[in-house]
Amino acid sequence: MSTSDIAYMKRAISLARKGLGRTAPNPAVGCVIVCDGVIVGEGWHKKAGTPHAEVHALAMAGAAAKGADVYVTLEPCCHHGKTPPCCDALIAAGVRRVVAGMVDPFLQVAGKGLQTLRQAGVRVEVGLLEQQCKELNKGFIKSVTTGMPYLLYKTAMTMDGNIATVTGHSRWVTGEESRRLVHRLRAHCDAVMVGVDTVIADNPQLTVRHVRGRDPLRVIVDTRLRTPESVNVLNGTDAGRTVIATCETNPDIHQRYLSQGADILVCREYDGRVEMTDLLRKLAVRGVQSILVEGGSRLAGDLLQRNLIDECIFFYAPKVVGNGFAPFAIQGISTMDEAIQLEVQRVGMSGPDVVVYARPVGVCLPV
Amino acid sequence: MSTSDIAYMKRAISLARKGLGRTAPNPAVGCVIVCDGVIVGEGWHKKAGTPHAEVHALAMAGAAAKGADVYVTLEPCCHHGKTPPCCDALIAAGVRRVVAGMVDPFLQVAGKGLQTLRQAGVRVEVGLLEQQCKELNKGFIKSVTTGMPYLLYKTAMTMDGNIATVTGHSRWVTGEESRRLVHRLRAHCDAVMVGVDTVIADNPQLTVRHVRGRDPLRVIVDTRLRTPESVNVLNGTDAGRTVIATCETNPDIHQRYLSQGADILVCREYDGRVEMTDLLRKLAVRGVQSILVEGGSRLAGDLLQRNLIDECIFFYAPKVVGNGFAPFAIQGISTMDEAIQLEVQRVGMSGPDVVVYARPVGVCLPV
Repeated sequence: MSTSDIAYMKRAISLARKGLGRTAPNPAVGCVIVCDGVIVGEGWHKKAGTPHAEVHALAMAGAAAKGADVYVTLEPCCHHGKTPPCCDALIAAGVRRVVAGMVDPFLQVAGKGLQTLRQAGVRVEVGLLEQQCKELNKGFIKSVTTGMPYLLYKTAMTMDGNIATVTGHSRWVTGEESRRLVHRLRAHCDAVMVGVDTVIADNPQLTVRHVRGRDPLRVIVDTRLRTPESVNVLNGTDAGRTVIATCETNPDIHQRYLSQGADILVCREYDGRVEMTDLLRKLAVRGVQSILVEGGSRLAGDLLQRNLIDECIFFYAPKVVGNGFAPFAIQGISTMDEAIQLEVQRVGMSGPDVVVYARPVGVCLPV
Repeated sequence: MSTSDIAYMKRAISLARKGLGRTAPNPAVGCVIVCDGVIVGEGWHKKAGTPHAEVHALAMAGAAAKGADVYVTLEPCCHHGKTPPCCDALIAAGVRRVVAGMVDPFLQVAGKGLQTLRQAGVRVEVGLLEQQCKELNKGFIKSVTTGMPYLLYKTAMTMDGNIATVTGHSRWVTGEESRRLVHRLRAHCDAVMVGVDTVIADNPQLTVRHVRGRDPLRVIVDTRLRTPESVNVLNGTDAGRTVIATCETNPDIHQRYLSQGADILVCREYDGRVEMTDLLRKLAVRGVQSILVEGGSRLAGDLLQRNLIDECIFFYAPKVVGNGFAPFAIQGISTMDEAIQLEVQRVGMSGPDVVVYARPVGVCLPV
């Protein structure tokens, strides 16, 4: 691979990013077509059911695609889904070479796209900037390979680890840059998830505001259906994008929420609470591939202890409040060697705040 | 200033560092003498009462100092202390030019050294790598300008802000690299300070082990003299390096500790506890210019609320324990805007741990 190969794949990755959060259950994909050192076509997958990235790029390239090099973040598809196979289109256009960022983990493709291209005489290379291409589609990869959504947990704390003061006050812990980053994370995930106590305490909207992007599905974990009917997530024009996961089976109680446009997802109960694996599988079936978990502490503690969180983003605001509220409610850890182990991936600043990206050790994400 | 000027001053700074923690009440100073592009002499101040950096460097240079350039991290002294003035020695050696990192804030020098050199016809420049030169002598600068020691506070937490589990278990929170870094900080400070509850809970030695360096003075803040006589800091061959700061005035009780070799410092009482400003001034008078505060939470909360901490080092180990012990005990903060504000200076990794350097906002350190 040459440095220009890398530059074109980087361009394809940034095109793919434009689709993030809008393509589920499909992956976000970007494509660049280059002829004689000139980009003659490019495109990205915008929304499930609409043309794939390669189709947009081929349309733009027209006859210039003949003999050209194609850079695509994911192996081109070879099956008839809602749109025809991209491999056939690439072969028909007469491209010379296809460079794919990664093999498609989706069982109906899984290398067969690359094989089809090779058999048609197209030169095929795979794995350029593979980690970055995989990073784009963490949710897609996890859900097609495991049937579970990718869980990204975020929390905003003071330097001394408090998500709220001793009175419960928490607006705001972090600065504007960090709050904007959280809204971008919301826009890139299929759903946001909070516990009912957070809904009661903070009455959040859980929508995307400070950045451009579509609002995610809102999932409220509420074992006993205690969500007040007056809260923000059940009101306004977008109340239909709220799902309440509960163990309550009484249809009369359900009706209160259904009449407000919200959806009810009855889940198995475990230890007096919604069984999270059951809930996550049910959400995956509904096409939810990635979830931003925003607390509260019981939900976060439960998910972390059950090894269901794939990635954590910790914001530390440069302030100290002494005692207050902790991000995780976890029972039964009495010595340091019993602690839940993480691994720090990256650390940096977000405006005046520190931001730490970490993964629980032992989560075997097939990325 | 040329790039070679910068390189020589960097060398002088790294020489100065060798003296860190051993020079109080003097500053740590390094000196490099360069003749025709060759280093002909170098030295650093090793210990109060022994020759200054310039004297060592001049001795090494000998006749080669004539017409040479001298790089020194701090303005050369012009007064008779325990050793004769370095300015006189530099002038006598016939040096051509002196580049000083910073003006000496000590009132008996404070620019008069540079003036003496200029009057003798030596070319003088000042301020090269000034921030780094000031960083070397934070304790010296603060104590000669304010009469108070420089306070560096460190704490080791889990990602969720706990310094110990709910049972009080805390060995170990962070990894080896971070613990070694703490020992280096101890070696570079004149004293370490902890509250009596930390002595009772952890029975620390507070000595320098995993790195080379001299043991700091150990200061135990113990309002009612509750320190058990059996603890590590009162036993062993180095018990004489322990000072207990207390409000207890009963000489019979003092005698128990004095007989073990420890020292007692009776301080004013405020709000039922040792008045920290009084204690810090008394330590400064005894030549303590820099203190590493290692907790516990009441001492740290008290110092932070009284705006007496100059710098914080927060270690975050990649683990989560849920509820546990907090680093700061602070009363009366009910909303986020009442939080004690810090400013992050630097963030990085220390082995597997995150390390954050921050300063309380509003501390006016004359550095």
